[in-house]
Amino acid sequence: MPSPKTQPARGMRDFLPEDVRKREYVIGVIKEVYERYGFEPLETPAVENIETLMGKYGEEGNQLIFKILKRGVHEGTGEVDLALRYDLTVPLARVVAEYRDKLPKFFKRYQIQPVWRADRPARGRYREFYQCDVDVLGSCSMIVEAEICAAASEVLTKLGFNDFCVRLNHRKALTGILGVSGVALEHHDSALVALDKLDKIGTDGVKKEFAARGVNEAAGERLLNFFSDLASLEHAAEIVAEEKSRQAMNKAVLGRIVEFVSDNELGAQGVAELQSILDYVEATGLSDRLKIDPSLARGLSYYTGAIIEISVKDLAGSLGGGGRYDNLVGMFLGQDIPACGFRWDSSGFWW
Amino acid sequence: MPSPKTQPARGMRDFLPEDVRKREYVIGVIKEVYERYGFEPLETPAVENIETLMGKYGEEGNQLIFKILKRGVHEGTGEVDLALRYDLTVPLARVVAEYRDKLPKFFKRYQIQPVWRADRPARGRYREFYQCDVDVLGSCSMIVEAEICAAASEVLTKLGFNDFCVRLNHRKALTGILGVSGVALEHHDSALVALDKLDKIGTDGVKKEFAARGVNEAAGERLLNFFSDLASLEHAAEIVAEEKSRQAMNKAVLGRIVEFVSDNELGAQGVAELQSILDYVEATGLSDRLKIDPSLARGLSYYTGAIIEISVKDLAGSLGGGGRYDNLVGMFLGQDIPACGFRWDSSGFWW
Repeated sequence: MPSPKTQPARGMRDFLPEDVRKREYVIGVIKEVYERYGFEPLETPAVENIETLMGKYGEEGNQLIFKILKRGVHEGTGEVDLALRYDLTVPLARVVAEYRDKLPKFFKRYQIQPVWRADRPARGRYREFYQCDVDVLGSCSMIVEAEICAAASEVLTKLGFNDFCVRLNHRKALTGILGVSGVALEHHDSALVALDKLDKIGTDGVKKEFAARGVNEAAGERLLNFFSDLASLEHAAEIVAEEKSRQAMNKAVLGRIVEFVSDNELGAQGVAELQSILDYVEATGLSDRLKIDPSLARGLSYYTGAIIEISVKDLAGSLGGGGRYDNLVGMFLGQDIPACGFRWDSSGFWW
Repeated sequence: MPSPKTQPARGMRDFLPEDVRKREYVIGVIKEVYERYGFEPLETPAVENIETLMGKYGEEGNQLIFKILKRGVHEGTGEVDLALRYDLTVPLARVVAEYRDKLPKFFKRYQIQPVWRADRPARGRYREFYQCDVDVLGSCSMIVEAEICAAASEVLTKLGFNDFCVRLNHRKALTGILGVSGVALEHHDSALVALDKLDKIGTDGVKKEFAARGVNEAAGERLLNFFSDLASLEHAAEIVAEEKSRQAMNKAVLGRIVEFVSDNELGAQGVAELQSILDYVEATGLSDRLKIDPSLARGLSYYTGAIIEISVKDLAGSLGGGGRYDNLVGMFLGQDIPACGFRWDSSGFWW
């Protein structure tokens, strides 16, 4: 008899004792910090009704959802009625709708559970990985953003990271900057995608991308000038690092945005909210970790307010990120619920 | 737009904060005890290759396995290539084969993860529930059985159970008793199923079942007499409970089995191993919890040696059980591996 395959299924991993202990240690630190910040644990089933998940993650997402065959006589027809959890946000939205009478209006929850995605192995991604989400529902106060930044920072500090940076931006500030530059609304997303490559392809490269994406030339020029100005500000700050604290730098950057967006209402609102977050964070003693970064986009279409990303110097990618997304968690409830969340990226120290 | 269903999928449960905390507390106690006993954590993927699971759980099991549609172009054909974990034993067997060079020959592991079964909801069972297994691989010593009984008892004590009983039997002792009675080998399993109902349907009821199942009448009579004798022994012990310890009772029961099986080799071997477990357990101070129960079968066909079950007085069903099953964990390795395991029953305090 040929011996059967004993590897785990493609893209899945076994965790031997040493691996489990490492993960348990990290999860333990995260839980301990999140609990102390008043987040409550939530767990949802690995398996959801197929209609709960389909259509929530775009066309690519639909294809990456693992679908489970309907049981019994239907097995032969290939009919599916269930699917594996794809993220922790849609289940949260379902839970918020289902238990609206039991859950508090102001609900801070963390959830640490695996999700499954039918990614092609060629892309080097795991098909089963843990996500670790915190979300605060029911409050529009910027204290929520500050608290999420503080909790995430404390997790990293306790795990021994000592050179991380919490980058902060705001969807409305970005919209204001793009608007004032003269970029048409329908080109906002693609302009940001191009702008994101500034470090790699330089000003001329981004200009070419703008042209290819149909961004108005003069508008693109104004946008690039704004970011070049910011970069030189940052550069100057690095030279005189001893004299300039991160706080002073953030103040200067916010000042430039205020100047640039002028009387653009969204832009001004975004800046005011960023300022409010900075003020709250100052009280936590974490101000030196925070950096206002007007170029940060992180899945722009998703966020409605603050955008957060944590990265480590000299390490590509980010450790985690999140932001405010006021239109998502209420999807099953048929009403908007203010929400702000943060998730550790699987590519970082997280599984 | 009609509001979509927000209940969890049929047979699945959401765990709100209070529920998560309860489960986490219990899991924490179990882990702490098992770790102290030297068990190491293992985690395997929720999703296995379909051929890893099919044919391992009998015909009913095959039907209760959740099957996942093959991704991509095959989606339309209804082809399946993956399935959800059905228990924690088959994945353990796969891991033992896959990492045989990395894992110690003597391997004590615990595993606490959900499993999925496509049970009909009418049967009132959950389709997603946690299993919590300990298994000791690589040793034939009865010290393993004693250690598993001691660890499980300590878990229960720490959880506040103070009236539980660890029932102990042995597959070989049972085979000896049935053999000496004259029950044909092919009727052993069905005779035990009938015998299991003695409490409910009485001697006459069991006799009728024996007849229906084709058990030789005289053999059935001898078997019933043996168990009636044991019951009266037990009854007498209850009356003089003050004077008779559980240990003395166990000694008396073992004596009766020895007498009955006489020179039946398997029976004598079973009794000797039970005696050996009792001797080891005595050293743990848990002897008063242990009860030799020759009627205990618990999925007989599975076990090759000791059979363990923990129950609480006045509570139907059991809290957990297990035993020695030397032929199972080596299924992917093509060789027998001595193994003894214990699992908390989902119907008890466990999820």
